[in-house]
Amino acid sequence: MDDTHISLAHGNGGRYMRELIEALFARHLANPLLRVNVDAASLPALQGELMVTTDGFTVQPLEFPGGSIGSLAVHGTVNDLAVSGATPHYLTLNAFIEEGFEIAQLERIIISLAHAARDANVAVVAGDTKVVRRGEGGGLYLATTGIGVRPGNLRLGLEHICAGDAVLVSGPVGDHGIAVMLAREQFGLYGELQSDATSVLPLTQALLPLSGLRFMRDPTRGGLATVMHEICHATELQVRLKQTAIPVRDEVLSVCEILGYDPMFLACEGRVLAIIEAAQANHALARWQALPQGVDAAIIGHISAGRAQLVLETELGGERIVQELEDDPLPRIC
Amino acid sequence: MDDTHISLAHGNGGRYMRELIEALFARHLANPLLRVNVDAASLPALQGELMVTTDGFTVQPLEFPGGSIGSLAVHGTVNDLAVSGATPHYLTLNAFIEEGFEIAQLERIIISLAHAARDANVAVVAGDTKVVRRGEGGGLYLATTGIGVRPGNLRLGLEHICAGDAVLVSGPVGDHGIAVMLAREQFGLYGELQSDATSVLPLTQALLPLSGLRFMRDPTRGGLATVMHEICHATELQVRLKQTAIPVRDEVLSVCEILGYDPMFLACEGRVLAIIEAAQANHALARWQALPQGVDAAIIGHISAGRAQLVLETELGGERIVQELEDDPLPRIC
Repeated sequence: MDDTHISLAHGNGGRYMRELIEALFARHLANPLLRVNVDAASLPALQGELMVTTDGFTVQPLEFPGGSIGSLAVHGTVNDLAVSGATPHYLTLNAFIEEGFEIAQLERIIISLAHAARDANVAVVAGDTKVVRRGEGGGLYLATTGIGVRPGNLRLGLEHICAGDAVLVSGPVGDHGIAVMLAREQFGLYGELQSDATSVLPLTQALLPLSGLRFMRDPTRGGLATVMHEICHATELQVRLKQTAIPVRDEVLSVCEILGYDPMFLACEGRVLAIIEAAQANHALARWQALPQGVDAAIIGHISAGRAQLVLETELGGERIVQELEDDPLPRIC
Repeated sequence: MDDTHISLAHGNGGRYMRELIEALFARHLANPLLRVNVDAASLPALQGELMVTTDGFTVQPLEFPGGSIGSLAVHGTVNDLAVSGATPHYLTLNAFIEEGFEIAQLERIIISLAHAARDANVAVVAGDTKVVRRGEGGGLYLATTGIGVRPGNLRLGLEHICAGDAVLVSGPVGDHGIAVMLAREQFGLYGELQSDATSVLPLTQALLPLSGLRFMRDPTRGGLATVMHEICHATELQVRLKQTAIPVRDEVLSVCEILGYDPMFLACEGRVLAIIEAAQANHALARWQALPQGVDAAIIGHISAGRAQLVLETELGGERIVQELEDDPLPRIC
């Protein structure tokens, strides 16, 4: 048997599977709660409101500047907990590995996942691997479920958004989407751009003490515009954004101009959108700008009582109604 | 756009994805805790020791006599919690859907998942869908994470197994493996056999009050023999099974004889193996046999102080050492 690539026997429940799990997953993800020979992990008691989220990952390529599907699987789930106001504690991990996948690459990805988990202070407490036949996978798909807790008195959610509230973003949008696209090399474009993928926990924790905080979200699939459309749907309020206020890196803008993409629809994996009472917007902005990952944070617009749609105030003083995404500009970005 | 099959746009975070999730996942899985427009679900406080498990599902075919990948995704995760002594409460669900997948079949599978969840009294509290390109999936892969609680004073685990303990199985082995294989119709064999896939919670709850209960497990991938090998590895004790005592349906035996399979390695999805102090073995057996899913339960062997291996005492008074599984007799069974 070829021992440098995954075979179906690595998924059959027998010796090869046990050895793969011990030598690779359990070794790199080791922590006191992760035991490979139990059916379910026992977790220490948690104080606060129990919060759970889950996410699947199918990004192509599996490794890109600034991360991999492994680190992304941690950041994506940690960030969903963080924007809901929670502190993430535990992760579970599922891996769907395609027959023929290189074990050395699998190990690099698991090491990257382990680093991201340590950085975000979360422990992988349970996992499962499945091997699928050659031609029935994309190399590697991951799914992670995150468990955390938040203070019981938090009032965050779409239902708290009011007309007049300010819209903030923690940094430039679209870096992840364009970095992954350039890594595919399909377009003959190359750059130094790194994905923004990271844990947003420092950003969300910085705003939690502000009583006027209404809602936070990380704009992943579908980008900034899709989160704003969700706000319009849920609140029946209008979102008005100033095009010139939205931070976008020059390199992202250039690629968008060449290829006809709109940065407002590009995925981020380390940014936060926050809706906050207008009176506290500058205070929130200052808190973000004091953090290394928030230096380019900006107030980009506000919520208004008008018709429930996303309105972009353009550079020349015009207005453009931004429609919902239908076709996918950049599939398989997360 | 073809609205009877999944397209990449169903995974892009925009309108098609939202409509698919609302019309299909959220509708069939509806419960008070499942909200589609939040990043993380808030769970009511749980009393007891928090237990978590996770599992991936890649079974082919996706629908088979007695279940589907949807019901299996519930039973597999519910059962991992049940055999650890926990009561399952919540599930998260990930779906990796291949472009071109028929939406009507997806709906049947989600309905089957929803029924299984209701029967097992668990709520799906969070979910995520990803669409992968045609030729990079197997139609549908699922991953579920289960959260439950167990009484804080339970002492269950491989480390509690002692020489002299009895080995019990709750019913015939291999029904799931053979039912799925027949459903593939690769061999030109057909039968009435149904998968045994179901929640084993009634079986595990029946044994929890017994102080001599050491360990329970559901023999899925790799079957009965693989669980016994795991016991040998972990305890450095011998497992001795009586071949004639192991319940196997005639139909399963026939197919195994024709195709050269060993029923001891075939997956079950609704059986429990229990290791229990010898003095309580008959009591445990009686408790199982009083349940509809335990009528064919049997004491099939015992733990011994000999060399750490699995020994099968054959019908004619001989002994056979059963080796660990290396090649996969039936891939993609769960």
